[in-house]
Amino acid sequence: MRLLLVLLSLSGLAWARAADHALVLQTDFGTKDGAVAAMRGVAFGVDSRLPIFDLSHENTPFDIWEAAYRLKQAAPYWPPGTVFVSVIDPGVGTERASVVLQTQSGHYFVGPDNGTWTLVAEELGIAAVRRIDERANRRAGSERSYTFHGRDIYAFTGARLAAGKITFAQVGPLLAPEVVRLPYERAALADGGLRGSIPLIDFHYGNVWTNIPEALFQELKPQFGDRFAVAIHHDGREVYRGVLPYVRTFGDVPAGAPLLYLNSLLNVAFALNRDNFAQRHGLGAGSGWSVRIERAR
Amino acid sequence: MRLLLVLLSLSGLAWARAADHALVLQTDFGTKDGAVAAMRGVAFGVDSRLPIFDLSHENTPFDIWEAAYRLKQAAPYWPPGTVFVSVIDPGVGTERASVVLQTQSGHYFVGPDNGTWTLVAEELGIAAVRRIDERANRRAGSERSYTFHGRDIYAFTGARLAAGKITFAQVGPLLAPEVVRLPYERAALADGGLRGSIPLIDFHYGNVWTNIPEALFQELKPQFGDRFAVAIHHDGREVYRGVLPYVRTFGDVPAGAPLLYLNSLLNVAFALNRDNFAQRHGLGAGSGWSVRIERAR
Amino acid sequence: MRLLLVLLSLSGLAWARAADHALVLQTDFGTKDGAVAAMRGVAFGVDSRLPIFDLSHENTPFDIWEAAYRLKQAAPYWPPGTVFVSVIDPGVGTERASVVLQTQSGHYFVGPDNGTWTLVAEELGIAAVRRIDERANRRAGSERSYTFHGRDIYAFTGARLAAGKITFAQVGPLLAPEVVRLPYERAALADGGLRGSIPLIDFHYGNVWTNIPEALFQELKPQFGDRFAVAIHHDGREVYRGVLPYVRTFGDVPAGAPLLYLNSLLNVAFALNRDNFAQRHGLGAGSGWSVRIERAR
Repeated sequence: MRLLLVLLSLSGLAWARAADHALVLQTDFGTKDGAVAAMRGVAFGVDSRLPIFDLSHENTPFDIWEAAYRLKQAAPYWPPGTVFVSVIDPGVGTERASVVLQTQSGHYFVGPDNGTWTLVAEELGIAAVRRIDERANRRAGSERSYTFHGRDIYAFTGARLAAGKITFAQVGPLLAPEVVRLPYERAALADGGLRGSIPLIDFHYGNVWTNIPEALFQELKPQFGDRFAVAIHHDGREVYRGVLPYVRTFGDVPAGAPLLYLNSLLNVAFALNRDNFAQRHGLGAGSGWSVRIERAR
Repeated sequence: MRLLLVLLSLSGLAWARAADHALVLQTDFGTKDGAVAAMRGVAFGVDSRLPIFDLSHENTPFDIWEAAYRLKQAAPYWPPGTVFVSVIDPGVGTERASVVLQTQSGHYFVGPDNGTWTLVAEELGIAAVRRIDERANRRAGSERSYTFHGRDIYAFTGARLAAGKITFAQVGPLLAPEVVRLPYERAALADGGLRGSIPLIDFHYGNVWTNIPEALFQELKPQFGDRFAVAIHHDGREVYRGVLPYVRTFGDVPAGAPLLYLNSLLNVAFALNRDNFAQRHGLGAGSGWSVRIERAR
Repeated sequence: MRLLLVLLSLSGLAWARAADHALVLQTDFGTKDGAVAAMRGVAFGVDSRLPIFDLSHENTPFDIWEAAYRLKQAAPYWPPGTVFVSVIDPGVGTERASVVLQTQSGHYFVGPDNGTWTLVAEELGIAAVRRIDERANRRAGSERSYTFHGRDIYAFTGARLAAGKITFAQVGPLLAPEVVRLPYERAALADGGLRGSIPLIDFHYGNVWTNIPEALFQELKPQFGDRFAVAIHHDGREVYRGVLPYVRTFGDVPAGAPLLYLNSLLNVAFALNRDNFAQRHGLGAGSGWSVRIERAR
């Protein structure tokens, strides 16, 4: 009887563990061909109960910054223990390290250490970094395959980690608790206003996302309805200048009107209600784009 | 012993419940960025055993009619208890109500009451409508986020409902059993023929779908092989006129030939076998497009 | 007590079975509309614990060869018992047979026997082929629907097979162990070199994949660093000629430089490191494209 109870509990626990942690895949492969499906198959083969999800496979090919930003956008909304595999890997087969990053938030990030971890390392904190020991952590039969680490090493290792088939320690040797960081300009106070950059256009709607967080924006003591002068420069040349009301949400201004709001990551953003701000003003994102915000007089 | 049996049953039941009901997501966000993945993460965080699926995330931005039609196309094929979250929400942050619609078929629909429920309300029947009480049904920590209800309220509430963490009554107060309805022209008998509209082009193949249901078409007593005169007008101007055979399926006519058939929703549709009917004749869908069908002489 | 152990084991086994086998869907429907979601709903309705995945839904419409190649690319990485449903079906409703192919590897392939199985039949071996008995294996209520076999027959039957609701024998009567084969030119030794075809461009990066397998390439006794003369013809006309180093992976040559490598399926392929080989040289795939490789002098 006691044995049975123990068996029952164990079986319950075993099941609970298997389903507790998700594997989340991000690549720049697209979903037109079978590459992502091969990764899913490898992960499913590790444990048929593993919850397998997609972050996105439409990352701009080779764009590591975008991949870093997508992880920042999605990872914090997944529970601790979630394992992210990210394969935007222009240097596949070169000497960039294959690692697993454990963050202080309890998330895991599996893939090449090429800058993809820049923003999650900063926001979620580095707990530890391990180099993947490819002798122990490689799909059986993949020894002569050198160009698809996403399938043969990363999906395989990520799935085993998420399913509890290996511990974090079994990934491989500890490295220094550092990851490759892409350089970018931080937001800051400047002459009574704020300056920052445009990490990304929210491409689907054309909203312009800045890297100015709510905490810094608070230095300007904004109240809903206050008006702010916004200037956007590209390589030093002014591309946009306007005065925008700070509002709670899109519907607070008429259709077609501009607004300044805190986006879903609680950073300052600019938009046109039901229209495309970036397209209408010829705005882009990334290197060379800068923003300045101050109270309108 | 009896206790054990009870435990066993309970554990079985508990598990069965958790996996019985799926959460199905529809948005106009696309899958290039991390927004949908953030919604999936919130839902997975509610219950790691919850089956989470996509309807589509490629809805034309802000196109509520299309969203309504997609639900009509997919929802009836899911079992009762399935929870659909639909976030095509041009009015995010305005005073449109956030609701859960329960249909007489036992399906649930979570999102803004902006017309998205028009067709499922009509086909599956309204059982009850509740306003989402956002004080009780909001992701912890999302209080200062006003622009991503899809993640903070709808995915969260839909997941809790599907997983049995809240009952339908716990969603919030009952409203009148009504939803916002988009106006559209019904199909009808007219002068011995039928008239109707074109709710949608089956864009991938260019087939033209009408809103004329099989039951109405039967009024013309069609037999496979019978020929029908079809006229399509746009804003009163004739764009297409032709005589089409009524056939069971595409392969019943030669490649390139036109056909009239009952589509997968058992509505009258027009197509070219292995070719694009809509493109070849410059046809569109929605407001202003009308169809007339009668027996060919 | 013994009874309980038996019950426990049975319940454990029952559960294990349900989750053991995945259903993997491939179509040319795209994911913009609700057709794929209707298929998912039907499959989920068969068994709420069934793991349901996508291979791809972006197959070029009606391109059976591409579908065949995608199965070759993905299927071997899924465990035995996995059930693939493939609906690229230009002949829907015609007399092409609806079958389930069981391969010697233990995988199942459900759909029209129109050439889609060409490459998996060749690589994984045919164990048996059964015609789907549509009287027994059709979604209830779908009797008058003739144009969406993907939803009404294939997803339904595939789900029931994967979930163990029917055995393979219950699919329908045995046919001869043959499937429709698309003709294609095999790779071969020729005049001290190799000739082959280009089944596919790895479209996302523009890499050119040949059908020359590693085993055949070994006849040239290649060592990493060796140089090979490559000529590509289209309908007999030379489109590309160059000398490429055989390397392990992309990073072994400078950015922009060409390389010859073994791709993820261990076939010979050509690429430019971080650039688009096919686009830069105007190369395509399929009928009429041929390749010749020999040692550079």
